[in-house]
Amino acid sequence: MATKVEGFNFEQRHGKARVRVARVWRNKSDNIHSMVEWNVSISLLSDCVSSYVRDDNSDIVATDTMKNTVYVKAKECSEQLSAENFAILLARHFTSFYKQVTTAIPHDHGFKLGSEKHTAEVTVQKSGVLKLTSGIEGLSVLKTTQGKSGFEGFIRDQYTALPETRERMLATEVTALWRYSYESVSSIPRNPLYFTERYLDVKKSLANTFFGPPKEGVYSASVQGTLFQMAKAVLNRFPDISSIQLKMPNIHFLPVNISSKENTIVKFNDDVFLPTDEPHGSIEASLSRFWSKM
Amino acid sequence: MATKVEGFNFEQRHGKARVRVARVWRNKSDNIHSMVEWNVSISLLSDCVSSYVRDDNSDIVATDTMKNTVYVKAKECSEQLSAENFAILLARHFTSFYKQVTTAIPHDHGFKLGSEKHTAEVTVQKSGVLKLTSGIEGLSVLKTTQGKSGFEGFIRDQYTALPETRERMLATEVTALWRYSYESVSSIPRNPLYFTERYLDVKKSLANTFFGPPKEGVYSASVQGTLFQMAKAVLNRFPDISSIQLKMPNIHFLPVNISSKENTIVKFNDDVFLPTDEPHGSIEASLSRFWSKM
Amino acid sequence: MATKVEGFNFEQRHGKARVRVARVWRNKSDNIHSMVEWNVSISLLSDCVSSYVRDDNSDIVATDTMKNTVYVKAKECSEQLSAENFAILLARHFTSFYKQVTTAIPHDHGFKLGSEKHTAEVTVQKSGVLKLTSGIEGLSVLKTTQGKSGFEGFIRDQYTALPETRERMLATEVTALWRYSYESVSSIPRNPLYFTERYLDVKKSLANTFFGPPKEGVYSASVQGTLFQMAKAVLNRFPDISSIQLKMPNIHFLPVNISSKENTIVKFNDDVFLPTDEPHGSIEASLSRFWSKM
Amino acid sequence: MATKVEGFNFEQRHGKARVRVARVWRNKSDNIHSMVEWNVSISLLSDCVSSYVRDDNSDIVATDTMKNTVYVKAKECSEQLSAENFAILLARHFTSFYKQVTTAIPHDHGFKLGSEKHTAEVTVQKSGVLKLTSGIEGLSVLKTTQGKSGFEGFIRDQYTALPETRERMLATEVTALWRYSYESVSSIPRNPLYFTERYLDVKKSLANTFFGPPKEGVYSASVQGTLFQMAKAVLNRFPDISSIQLKMPNIHFLPVNISSKENTIVKFNDDVFLPTDEPHGSIEASLSRFWSKM
Repeated sequence: MATKVEGFNFEQRHGKARVRVARVWRNKSDNIHSMVEWNVSISLLSDCVSSYVRDDNSDIVATDTMKNTVYVKAKECSEQLSAENFAILLARHFTSFYKQVTTAIPHDHGFKLGSEKHTAEVTVQKSGVLKLTSGIEGLSVLKTTQGKSGFEGFIRDQYTALPETRERMLATEVTALWRYSYESVSSIPRNPLYFTERYLDVKKSLANTFFGPPKEGVYSASVQGTLFQMAKAVLNRFPDISSIQLKMPNIHFLPVNISSKENTIVKFNDDVFLPTDEPHGSIEASLSRFWSKM
Repeated sequence: MATKVEGFNFEQRHGKARVRVARVWRNKSDNIHSMVEWNVSISLLSDCVSSYVRDDNSDIVATDTMKNTVYVKAKECSEQLSAENFAILLARHFTSFYKQVTTAIPHDHGFKLGSEKHTAEVTVQKSGVLKLTSGIEGLSVLKTTQGKSGFEGFIRDQYTALPETRERMLATEVTALWRYSYESVSSIPRNPLYFTERYLDVKKSLANTFFGPPKEGVYSASVQGTLFQMAKAVLNRFPDISSIQLKMPNIHFLPVNISSKENTIVKFNDDVFLPTDEPHGSIEASLSRFWSKM
Repeated sequence: MATKVEGFNFEQRHGKARVRVARVWRNKSDNIHSMVEWNVSISLLSDCVSSYVRDDNSDIVATDTMKNTVYVKAKECSEQLSAENFAILLARHFTSFYKQVTTAIPHDHGFKLGSEKHTAEVTVQKSGVLKLTSGIEGLSVLKTTQGKSGFEGFIRDQYTALPETRERMLATEVTALWRYSYESVSSIPRNPLYFTERYLDVKKSLANTFFGPPKEGVYSASVQGTLFQMAKAVLNRFPDISSIQLKMPNIHFLPVNISSKENTIVKFNDDVFLPTDEPHGSIEASLSRFWSKM
Repeated sequence: MATKVEGFNFEQRHGKARVRVARVWRNKSDNIHSMVEWNVSISLLSDCVSSYVRDDNSDIVATDTMKNTVYVKAKECSEQLSAENFAILLARHFTSFYKQVTTAIPHDHGFKLGSEKHTAEVTVQKSGVLKLTSGIEGLSVLKTTQGKSGFEGFIRDQYTALPETRERMLATEVTALWRYSYESVSSIPRNPLYFTERYLDVKKSLANTFFGPPKEGVYSASVQGTLFQMAKAVLNRFPDISSIQLKMPNIHFLPVNISSKENTIVKFNDDVFLPTDEPHGSIEASLSRFWSKM
């Protein structure tokens, strides 16, 4: 979407980030209250080049106005809805209300009540074309079960110190991002909590594949192999998800072995590990159906 | 670079993140020592799908091996060099040493000695094709000078509360990312500190344009307008930079005005401001020469 | 514990911070594994003034040695134990093994598997005198129930803008620190998980008092009042806790009301709130039995 | 200051944290503007036990009122002043304006324009008794000069792996806290920037002692020894500072040596180091004049 300006290509967007809003719904009949807290960021692609090059702001939607809109729209929601539906609602507003706005991209993430965070990003064009992605950040999982994680048979050369093993800890903090196949605003499911339920189901599917069957578990030959099984499980189970990206940093638990010139201080015996944040391995991959665009 | 796997499209990369390394050079003749500290992350695009789908790791470069390589290569550098040159050197190693590796993408950032951080990201393909970008993170700048920053003439509607002004604080923390026009590893300048010097010059150019001439300064009609001037200044001054992206969040300093039902508690008179991190405006744009690819 | 040195009073301590260690216990009979991850910091009060004033390090326990000791001692634990017991074990080692060490103060905190963190701090003197405190960090609790939280009747003056209310959100992130009454290493309970169970019970007691009975709940007249009830509940229920300190920042959820000169943009109706991290109220207090020393 | 309540000892305080305020002074004559940004936290010790135990808030200064007061008082400052003076001014207000308040403790820290932060904490009692401390957080210093830092002669036992050395990197991030000897509000110097200047002088004194004379430098036999010289330099140079506390974590730069069963991968030769945040050594000490109370 580059414009030509003064002899250069030019691309721009502007928006409001970190707009925190909490919405409470009070059910008069049973006096049950529900609440969500969202942290919303909005980007607008709009025809406002004159503010950049001619100091003319007449096509600018002030970012303060965007912030106010988040509150107004939250208030207008008379029943509870998913983060995705709220993002779509905002995106539709900006693209239809302002003739200057060609594309709106709200990004939401939910309140940190557990250790992981639910994210949603929506792109809506003036024509109604939709791109909808949801995600999980910070899903921590760890395998200690004996004989259930190893790493063997990799390339060995003069830089290789890592020994082969069929016994290691496997720990990661999964970041997942998946795209739904709905391609227009009018085609999404009617249930305003549909995407909230999908989110919980995807999370369960990822965790179950990581751990394997409750009794016997499953052996992991590499983070790579486990990642692939997890991505495949999601695409196989949820027909309206067209692609998924997984980032699974390998959070190392190093066996502790210490010795000095004089003596052995700690000899590792499958018992004491050094958990370390840096450096860490980074493994990421995406899996999509043939017809998908992601 | 998607592969077709078991009926899906599949893309992947793996690497090692947050490898911190410090390198000291000791000049025997004058006993002057110089030091750099880098935080390196490496991603490899490589032919190792079998580790994902068949539990066969024989094509995997272990991320531990990548970590070791960073130390070995740092040691091999007998004279000081820029973060960009070190990243290129790493990328060349991985693409030439391993037949499985098609593309290597190291990312470096320097030690936080000041408040801003110098970043570098390199992509090298097996063929030698190069993409080289450098950046600044966290360059804080602020204008308090009277009559030097305003925001007027923007769209007003039922969501607009922001008053027009020719008097406001303008504060931002610039993130800049620029791409050099060198398209192969063999074409980069020979001076190993060339990109370090360029970095300092770009930083100076951005700051000078933000503030204007020392005596009279320069009026900012919007963050958008100022951003555009800054990007243009860089492209006009540095012929080997083909494009630049700037992110300039509008860090708001709100005028403090407080009143209760009974009385006015603080009345703003251009004196007391509430600095706030959230929400903040987000303005970003990129500017490139017509022939550039970024 | 000040020493007189070169005409000044002098106090010092040294230690090792952020020693992360994971310990796995593998039960051969049922193949059930258990794991803990601790982040340990140790401070030693010791007779090593000569290293400060005479460049003589012969009385210094190197901090690298302290780090090694954490791993060795973790390895020596043949069965699972609480963070408190591990800290006591470390403290006893340093005070008995080194004649220079008069007091050892290990501080532990557990792995962030949920949103809250379990902390433990132990002080052991060479004589065996013990001070044992445990804590919770980051216990998030929130009341939205109508009519269950208010704030009325406070001082009003020319700085007061806050309206009175019997309807507000009450949210806080509790930090609790409690001291056990055991005054020597030999008097603590034998069960190595005793303090882990106590921790879970104290957490439950704090949360239950905050929320009140499941059906009707309980009205909070102020953070102060609720804090006091919570502290009292813990002391009344656990006879071996001699004092408790609670920090309960008032995390504000501000009612959203926005208007411009021209019109009202959002009018609050018990529905849309602005959650804000700063500024926040800070309320803290400690409650102890008459005979306690804390 | 414990009160007896319902059979327990009880201590409490409440306040407002993270109140950010910026104050601009515009000099009409020369059109030069100056600005400070402070982040203020206030704690009040006050007679308001009835809010804790009897749901009676009539003695509570609302934390919202405290926040407003910060803005009002910032506005009332007609000329620039140090963080310490602003904290004293706030403390005096709370202790004199409210009969319930017996002690006020504001804590300030300045804007992060460089990498280090200036802090100030003041305690004022209703009688006018003053305790004034200032500090630096995050002053990063590092020695690479050959032969200028070592660590030898420490205790060796079966837990010791660390080799002796006269050649190591010495890096730390100094946190300093010093107490001024002024014991009443009326006795402090009249110059409203007095403590700002002192802060800069103390910082220079700490750095100069760490590095030694520009040409030859100074040898450090341990962090302990260097810390002591730095503390002593400050007390010897500034007669109105009665005590100083220094925390100097030993931020380790580990020599990189890696080998596998088969071969040596990197052999350290005073050139490549691994900078590491955790674990780190922690060395802290305080030095005070004989008559001081800190």
